[in-house]
Amino acid sequence: MSNFVAPVARLIEQLSKLPGIGKKTAQRLAFYILNTREDEAINLAEAIIEAKRKIKYCSICSNITDIDPCNICTSPKRNKKIICVVEDPRDIAAMERIKEYNGLYHVLHGAISPMEGIGPEDIKIKELIVRLQNNDVEEIILATNPNIEGEATAMYISKIVKPTGIKVTRIAHGVPVGGDLEYADEVTLAKALEGRREL
Amino acid sequence: MSNFVAPVARLIEQLSKLPGIGKKTAQRLAFYILNTREDEAINLAEAIIEAKRKIKYCSICSNITDIDPCNICTSPKRNKKIICVVEDPRDIAAMERIKEYNGLYHVLHGAISPMEGIGPEDIKIKELIVRLQNNDVEEIILATNPNIEGEATAMYISKIVKPTGIKVTRIAHGVPVGGDLEYADEVTLAKALEGRREL
Repeated sequence: MSNFVAPVARLIEQLSKLPGIGKKTAQRLAFYILNTREDEAINLAEAIIEAKRKIKYCSICSNITDIDPCNICTSPKRNKKIICVVEDPRDIAAMERIKEYNGLYHVLHGAISPMEGIGPEDIKIKELIVRLQNNDVEEIILATNPNIEGEATAMYISKIVKPTGIKVTRIAHGVPVGGDLEYADEVTLAKALEGRREL
Repeated sequence: MSNFVAPVARLIEQLSKLPGIGKKTAQRLAFYILNTREDEAINLAEAIIEAKRKIKYCSICSNITDIDPCNICTSPKRNKKIICVVEDPRDIAAMERIKEYNGLYHVLHGAISPMEGIGPEDIKIKELIVRLQNNDVEEIILATNPNIEGEATAMYISKIVKPTGIKVTRIAHGVPVGGDLEYADEVTLAKALEGRREL
């Protein structure tokens, strides 16, 4: 169906596999790449391969990292008594931007969602429980997204962790309900952190 | 400012150089790539490099091609007496989809636009004139976009070519005025071709 020569058709096909990139956008991106300088195109291609090859998940917190354990887990400046639980590595980037949180993180890589068939065993909850057994953790901040799945996940973790005596808090609903943590602005997120309450 | 580890930050930076890809979209694409299978990521990277390395412009019609001259210019099945002049290689793909045109093409790689400082010498008009001197061309179909720049370019070429006695036609305004040829549907484009008039 494509009327482009093979290398262009292949590039369009590969680009259109990316999320949110339809056929027309893929064509536009492909032609941009064809018209750009060769070193720019190579930079992009290399960045893809390098990121894919170098990035792994931290064996402690499951954040994306190029060294294991990650910089945050090994930093002597971080407070190892607090763990902030998030759904996605991008949420860590959002939290770090507010520059008010100094503890550790734990990335669940998802949230409990019966609708999508994602149960507690499908996200990194047991890895979190293991961390709590080995460390002197005093507080768990549940910073899952403020939507149904995020709330359900927070409740689930809270029920498991509370019997251990560790303080369990949930970030305040300063973040708009139904929203996505990743897109919250710094002020809202800082307010949400400040107003966290014990569960 | 980025809170991502270096390889991820680099990938996001490279992706956000693409047209229409902002910082948030670049992040989303980068994380998609990180979560995809390694061979899929390599396929994408290789497609970028392969397209960039193998694709050149046809020395006759300036279409993108992996062999020079391109398949259309060398095809014995094409009518070499008609040349359809378009602004962009993507317009050729659009024309080929209607399966009603059997002549050759000439890609201008742009249109005359005094507002953007693009004059006749900046697009491949002289290459077109050279082709007309060497060949038995009987008709030039001007299929530049139906907007101000495309019309100006068609007028300019028409004034140069008409004195040579070659028939000069313009695709009909079946394509919506102010639009972009690339996004026209097959039926509209077929109508535009059918209703072409001599200038």
